[in-house]
Amino acid sequence: MKRTYIDMNDIRFLLFEVHGIEELTRHPRFAHVGGREEIELLLQTARDIADREMFPFYKEMDSQPVVYRDGGVRTHPQLRNIFRAVADAGWFAATTDFEDGGIQLPYTLFSTAHMIFEAANNSAQGYLGVSTGAIDLITTFGSEELKKTFVPPMMEGRWQGTMALTEPQAGSSLSDIRSTARPTPDGAFHISGQKIFISAGEHEACDNFIHLTLARIEGAPAGTKGISLFLIPKFLPSAEGDLVYNHVECVADFQKMGQRGYATTHLVFGETGPTVGYLVGEAHRGLACMFQMMNAARIAVGQTAAAIASAAYHYSLNYARERPQGRHILEKDPLKPQIPIIRHADIRRMLLAQKCFIEGSFSLVTECLKLVDLEKISEGEDQRRARLLLELLTPIVKTYPSEEGIRSVSQALQIFGGYGYTMDFDAQQYYRDIRIMAIYEGTTGIQSLDLLGRKVGMESGKALEYLAREISKVVEAAAQYEDLLPYAHRLQSAVSIWQSVLSHLQGFAGRGQLDRYLADANLFLELSSLVVMGWQWLKMGVTASGQWTGGRSLPTAFYQGKLQSMRYFFKYELPRIHS
Amino acid sequence: MKRTYIDMNDIRFLLFEVHGIEELTRHPRFAHVGGREEIELLLQTARDIADREMFPFYKEMDSQPVVYRDGGVRTHPQLRNIFRAVADAGWFAATTDFEDGGIQLPYTLFSTAHMIFEAANNSAQGYLGVSTGAIDLITTFGSEELKKTFVPPMMEGRWQGTMALTEPQAGSSLSDIRSTARPTPDGAFHISGQKIFISAGEHEACDNFIHLTLARIEGAPAGTKGISLFLIPKFLPSAEGDLVYNHVECVADFQKMGQRGYATTHLVFGETGPTVGYLVGEAHRGLACMFQMMNAARIAVGQTAAAIASAAYHYSLNYARERPQGRHILEKDPLKPQIPIIRHADIRRMLLAQKCFIEGSFSLVTECLKLVDLEKISEGEDQRRARLLLELLTPIVKTYPSEEGIRSVSQALQIFGGYGYTMDFDAQQYYRDIRIMAIYEGTTGIQSLDLLGRKVGMESGKALEYLAREISKVVEAAAQYEDLLPYAHRLQSAVSIWQSVLSHLQGFAGRGQLDRYLADANLFLELSSLVVMGWQWLKMGVTASGQWTGGRSLPTAFYQGKLQSMRYFFKYELPRIHS
Repeated sequence: MKRTYIDMNDIRFLLFEVHGIEELTRHPRFAHVGGREEIELLLQTARDIADREMFPFYKEMDSQPVVYRDGGVRTHPQLRNIFRAVADAGWFAATTDFEDGGIQLPYTLFSTAHMIFEAANNSAQGYLGVSTGAIDLITTFGSEELKKTFVPPMMEGRWQGTMALTEPQAGSSLSDIRSTARPTPDGAFHISGQKIFISAGEHEACDNFIHLTLARIEGAPAGTKGISLFLIPKFLPSAEGDLVYNHVECVADFQKMGQRGYATTHLVFGETGPTVGYLVGEAHRGLACMFQMMNAARIAVGQTAAAIASAAYHYSLNYARERPQGRHILEKDPLKPQIPIIRHADIRRMLLAQKCFIEGSFSLVTECLKLVDLEKISEGEDQRRARLLLELLTPIVKTYPSEEGIRSVSQALQIFGGYGYTMDFDAQQYYRDIRIMAIYEGTTGIQSLDLLGRKVGMESGKALEYLAREISKVVEAAAQYEDLLPYAHRLQSAVSIWQSVLSHLQGFAGRGQLDRYLADANLFLELSSLVVMGWQWLKMGVTASGQWTGGRSLPTAFYQGKLQSMRYFFKYELPRIHS
Repeated sequence: MKRTYIDMNDIRFLLFEVHGIEELTRHPRFAHVGGREEIELLLQTARDIADREMFPFYKEMDSQPVVYRDGGVRTHPQLRNIFRAVADAGWFAATTDFEDGGIQLPYTLFSTAHMIFEAANNSAQGYLGVSTGAIDLITTFGSEELKKTFVPPMMEGRWQGTMALTEPQAGSSLSDIRSTARPTPDGAFHISGQKIFISAGEHEACDNFIHLTLARIEGAPAGTKGISLFLIPKFLPSAEGDLVYNHVECVADFQKMGQRGYATTHLVFGETGPTVGYLVGEAHRGLACMFQMMNAARIAVGQTAAAIASAAYHYSLNYARERPQGRHILEKDPLKPQIPIIRHADIRRMLLAQKCFIEGSFSLVTECLKLVDLEKISEGEDQRRARLLLELLTPIVKTYPSEEGIRSVSQALQIFGGYGYTMDFDAQQYYRDIRIMAIYEGTTGIQSLDLLGRKVGMESGKALEYLAREISKVVEAAAQYEDLLPYAHRLQSAVSIWQSVLSHLQGFAGRGQLDRYLADANLFLELSSLVVMGWQWLKMGVTASGQWTGGRSLPTAFYQGKLQSMRYFFKYELPRIHS
């Protein structure tokens, strides 16, 4: 049986029927994209690249991992082909405006293509994702000069963009960043300092590396308010078109438990000679710039976790259909042939649990992606709604798939029994790969504080109000279908529990007991995630039962499968709110 | 700060104060062991070996893993020293009867020593544990001849014992075993077949390998009732004391995600020449023999999981005390020095969750170990009680630590942030190592079926009755302490929920709907585990508050810590029964 890693029908269902991507493509900014047919073709190009250039090299990029040797980072030779294929198809330029030389696609569409890449080969996708993030940052905040010089080679996949935040003494605590920038007479800066855990910081598939780096201008205020954003190329392009070494040293590559095909580097600036950096955006406003990008990065982390789980799920499904083992519990005759393990109740449960997790997570991810676009193209109240909902959902879409994805991939591995633990099978690779997602771009602990400490109180709780309204809309729609009514009620009662927990906690905050208010922030995040996933599942249930934003054009069995997953969620997952 | 991996006070608390090991050592069989002082000395010898020979090599045995090269299994050179040290201290002979040349220690004491080994270096302990299991099997079921020939060199640590069950086409389904045994005129057998995943099946620290192997005598009935147990040495000892090759080929070593210092081999019998095997116990009764050993093996798996989690916990605790990062949430001055991360609420929560899991699991393990001994030394009703309680608790003590231990070690890793994912730190190694425990000796799915399908109904539910009585005893004792009263009530109500779920499920079974009865066996196992852990925690609470089986002789702060862990369990873990 041919092995796959993601179901294109799930993507169709989410884009066209549940989340209505046409709402975006009808907007003048995206009108050139076309309709469903054009979008499907576009996604098919991504799938073809993933099938041909990425998925077949998933295992090899792990067993021949990135290493630091002879003063440089050595990567798998296929990485170069992947950069070529992705660049040729235009994916590096996908979200950039026409006027900056881009293709101006909706972020939703771009990121859905990346979801396919992530499922096929998450190490390979890492390089691509971080480069696009860097392009976005430069085109949003950079001067015309910086855009003109650095963005085109990055869009062509010849230069790699990175994000350089972390320093050895300052992990999650960005206010303790010590890298410094000293102004030079020509308006640039000389940067010195060290950065660790810099993904894609150096490799063999690109000629130059453009590090978007947080540093402190000499004399800047202490704390987060004194941090600026700089563009630091490894090589400075001269007027003649040569590349001149800028004293950006890569001194090490971190060996990791997973994502072993993805370089994680240690960079040193200004140690062997002057390192020139250019200010991006306003001085001392670097964190705000970076955080604009951070929301997208956090969605991407949750999305990658769900995509890895998707690949592991399809892998285990395939195995369960083919592996004979044991007999039905009521069959006592040992001479009967063994049955495929998919017929054992426990195996089916583990498959269904994975399916439910992945489909729910993909739906939430798509919801958030669309909000990114809506915030960009809408105005006034609509824009405020998109912005606040996105802020509120970001810690959830980052964390729920990252934490629950570990459990999902663990179930995939379990289906293989002892074989799942051996290096001969890929289950253990997915298991190792996904573990970083709960750490990347702010750990689960930090996301929990973000949700309870900042997001729920934002603009007098307006974000929560918007979310409650969205949930009500779905509950009302579900009430039209007799089969869905019980689930609508369960979601409503989950919302009530959630609201009363929040009021209880806010009692502490009101009395100034901020410690107690935040003590169980992680549990509040879990509770909120279950409510949000219930909302997504009911929305998918309505779509599968009749109509939500779009019509229904997929096979009937597909919709039946969705409703089965929905029932699984309401029966086995949502009740966890009671603990 | 010196890094540790297990807390000897926890062991003292459990052995002497909670579970009363003196009840065993007062019995004539164990009277030679002595009192608390002697037992502590004995355990200290184990701790010294673990400190000196095992723990310092934990990382190296992973980074220089077992490999199959030049037709043989290559292991870390330290393994030989470990075998020597453990043999010299007598631990290979620990549980064997005096008359068979052993030291006749309580199994509880032996296994507690192994708990220390497992926490120090679980790969190394694997070799030791499986050899002792093989010795037990031979001394229990083997002929005098077999005992005399094979047991002494195993007790001296010169020969390795193994358990060979799994075949490529028969993983969990033992009725499909195909290895065959053809009788020879001298009363022995010629064995042919293949075995996979054979732990310690070959390595460089021993001269001979004694495989206790399941195979089918030609003409035996199909299914599990036609399986016999054989002793198959790699080399046959001749009358002159030479070792003669017995055509046991090791053809591969499985490369695994974790436990990379522990050999997992593929063996072939009778392919290059005749392989002689000796029947152990009665013909066709092999599975019953193996299952006697299997209970102990299953406790050992749960114990190892808890021990790995213990090592990961102490590692993360150390780091949390030393790593400065961020400031208190109410501290806004970025010029203040950073605080150690242990002062962040989220880090403290992750430490406490680990501590609670480990202490609870160790207590349940000790409860079960004592039952192993009690079954052996008691008679009549007492023996029946020990046997049935042990049968009932075995799937729980195997599974709860294996599954929850993954979560515990994951929290340890999370405390290290990005560093936890790098190979420079050991957190990822603990994370990879522990994952196999949910697969070894019967997967979680199989344990769930065992609990609900066999154990709860055993002897008309007598096992459940014994357990309920044990729980009542603790609840009554707790009711004497005002502080414990609320927890006693919570445990009682958890027991009621558990009993009503079981009645509900038994309704299906009564109507012959065995499929439905067993469909959520895994959830029933989870629920049962929480009730059982509540019982253990309340028992520890009573001990820490006043007196249970023994007196109190540890520092007051220790008991306060226990009560804190108990409260954590009742607040954050037990409520999961509601989902």
